[in-house]
Amino acid sequence: MATSGKPFLRALRGEACERPPFWLMRQAGRYLPEYRAMRAKAGSFLDLCFNPELAEEVTLQPLRRYGMDAAILFSDILVVPHALGQPLDYVEGEGPRLDPVRSAEDLARLSAERLHERLAPVYETVDRLSRSLPAETALIGFAGSPWTVACYMVEGGGSKEFAQVKAWAYRDPDGFSALIDMLVAATVDYLSAQIAAGAEAVQLFDSWAGVLPAPQFRRWVVEPTARIVTALRAGHPDVPVIGFPRGAGLLYAEYADATGVDALGLDTAVPPEWAALTLQTRLTVQGNLDPIMLVAGGEALSAAARNVLEALAGGPFVFNLGHGVVQSTPPKHVGQLAALLRAWPALS
Amino acid sequence: MATSGKPFLRALRGEACERPPFWLMRQAGRYLPEYRAMRAKAGSFLDLCFNPELAEEVTLQPLRRYGMDAAILFSDILVVPHALGQPLDYVEGEGPRLDPVRSAEDLARLSAERLHERLAPVYETVDRLSRSLPAETALIGFAGSPWTVACYMVEGGGSKEFAQVKAWAYRDPDGFSALIDMLVAATVDYLSAQIAAGAEAVQLFDSWAGVLPAPQFRRWVVEPTARIVTALRAGHPDVPVIGFPRGAGLLYAEYADATGVDALGLDTAVPPEWAALTLQTRLTVQGNLDPIMLVAGGEALSAAARNVLEALAGGPFVFNLGHGVVQSTPPKHVGQLAALLRAWPALS
Repeated sequence: MATSGKPFLRALRGEACERPPFWLMRQAGRYLPEYRAMRAKAGSFLDLCFNPELAEEVTLQPLRRYGMDAAILFSDILVVPHALGQPLDYVEGEGPRLDPVRSAEDLARLSAERLHERLAPVYETVDRLSRSLPAETALIGFAGSPWTVACYMVEGGGSKEFAQVKAWAYRDPDGFSALIDMLVAATVDYLSAQIAAGAEAVQLFDSWAGVLPAPQFRRWVVEPTARIVTALRAGHPDVPVIGFPRGAGLLYAEYADATGVDALGLDTAVPPEWAALTLQTRLTVQGNLDPIMLVAGGEALSAAARNVLEALAGGPFVFNLGHGVVQSTPPKHVGQLAALLRAWPALS
Repeated sequence: MATSGKPFLRALRGEACERPPFWLMRQAGRYLPEYRAMRAKAGSFLDLCFNPELAEEVTLQPLRRYGMDAAILFSDILVVPHALGQPLDYVEGEGPRLDPVRSAEDLARLSAERLHERLAPVYETVDRLSRSLPAETALIGFAGSPWTVACYMVEGGGSKEFAQVKAWAYRDPDGFSALIDMLVAATVDYLSAQIAAGAEAVQLFDSWAGVLPAPQFRRWVVEPTARIVTALRAGHPDVPVIGFPRGAGLLYAEYADATGVDALGLDTAVPPEWAALTLQTRLTVQGNLDPIMLVAGGEALSAAARNVLEALAGGPFVFNLGHGVVQSTPPKHVGQLAALLRAWPALS
């Protein structure tokens, strides 16, 4: 059964590995003191994303401590609207702020003309990482999915109700689809360039997939994702695509079938036993330890990690969290998890 | 098939009504100018909740405009921790603020001793409503579910990550269960008193049910809810209980079976066709139009409402939203929906 190559990529190709490969969403970040030091040095958060030397360094920081099987490019999903010309700022403690795009007129001010020029520092970070990573460590590129990026673009930042973006999509689906189409094209171009620079797999983050009713989920989450997967596969048939439709719940299986992704990121709420029976028979799954277990630590963390492993490690599987590492995570708890994963299945 | 009685209560007893009864979560609220006027008169939000005359008035306001089949007591789920002695304040535009409860020591400062005394104004509101409602209109009492109320109590307000409440529950489940047990007992007492005052059905709001992994969902959502349902049924066998485990996703069916609720509130993300096949064969379902469709209005609203009706109106069903009415809702769109529902099935 075993093929050669990096364990993470073998798992994405559908192989069940004896020890499941692992990485953690937001594994580079504010819970690490060495990240906070680098962040202070960089200036703004965007300055850090667009500084290839520092972005490379923060990407590598968690690997030095914990030896994950994959590194994920340090960047942000909102660099795409920024590169399309939408003003973007990060307010400390409040998250991103954008000048909202809410009409065809607003949309006409955006353009993909300078996309690659503005994103060139990101491609340089990928290129540097592709040369500096340990031989066994895979490099993941990423982008936000069109629906989730559109949520930020239309709301002008985070949201609880998504009233602006949904009302536009519901009232004027043709007008809204011009925004989604622009994002589909930009995302394909952006990810293709990351792949050309050395990304070996890509993940599409759809953090707000779960806020839509089923018909709109099909139209604004599934269809655009399927178009991105088709386009990437045409250009780069060997590069696996991981879809992460957070909160998709009862529509997870439909998303897997209809988008054609190679692997599926599971959020915290997906029961691992159900995923083993229903999803893992069709594709590789990735997930889904609650990141707050990394805050709790101790026996609670170990038991919860074993629960995920027992359900999913028998099939094609990448161990991960169900959402990103949170800032209040004690780094030693990540070390505890990494040790448990490296000792699996001896400890099972 | 048809029995006598209020349409809303017939639907909760499992009857498919020719015209499905309807009400809307947060049907009384800031989208109505007459509510905003009353709110300004009352003083603080809590003053309004604890003023039986004004709380009765705001409960009745949407019924006068739209003739819903049920009124829901105007109150808030956090009056229970307040009555247990936890200081509570509402900050305009920011939501509730509580002095966090994060340890056995914090918990020891709370007590159910003055629960009924402090909640007496709520019972008086229920009593007034039970005498002032139109003959065909049912009266719904409600409480938050222990898990969701505990989230607010431990976090000290709203949260995105739920790191404090989850870390406590994960690290120290025995200690945390003392809080949950206190809330189970208080909720049974509180809802029993609402029923004694005239509530004809009760709804348990579990807004944060969807943030837990499956094992913890079973322990902190399903088990406490089952205990509340059992206790209420022993005292009040004829009063239906509606459970609303928002975000339960793949665990909706298990929640329905294991809690014993009479009816199940569906959030926006539940596909109505799936609910018809899987849930409605076992119990009455309620939901699940996206509240942002009421912001959109027009043909989008009508089509989305018909989509829900076509899937679910053939079985035991209460039409509702999948989440509460939002502040930016134009009142005339609620009128459009009410007219469509009243004309159903003639328009189908």
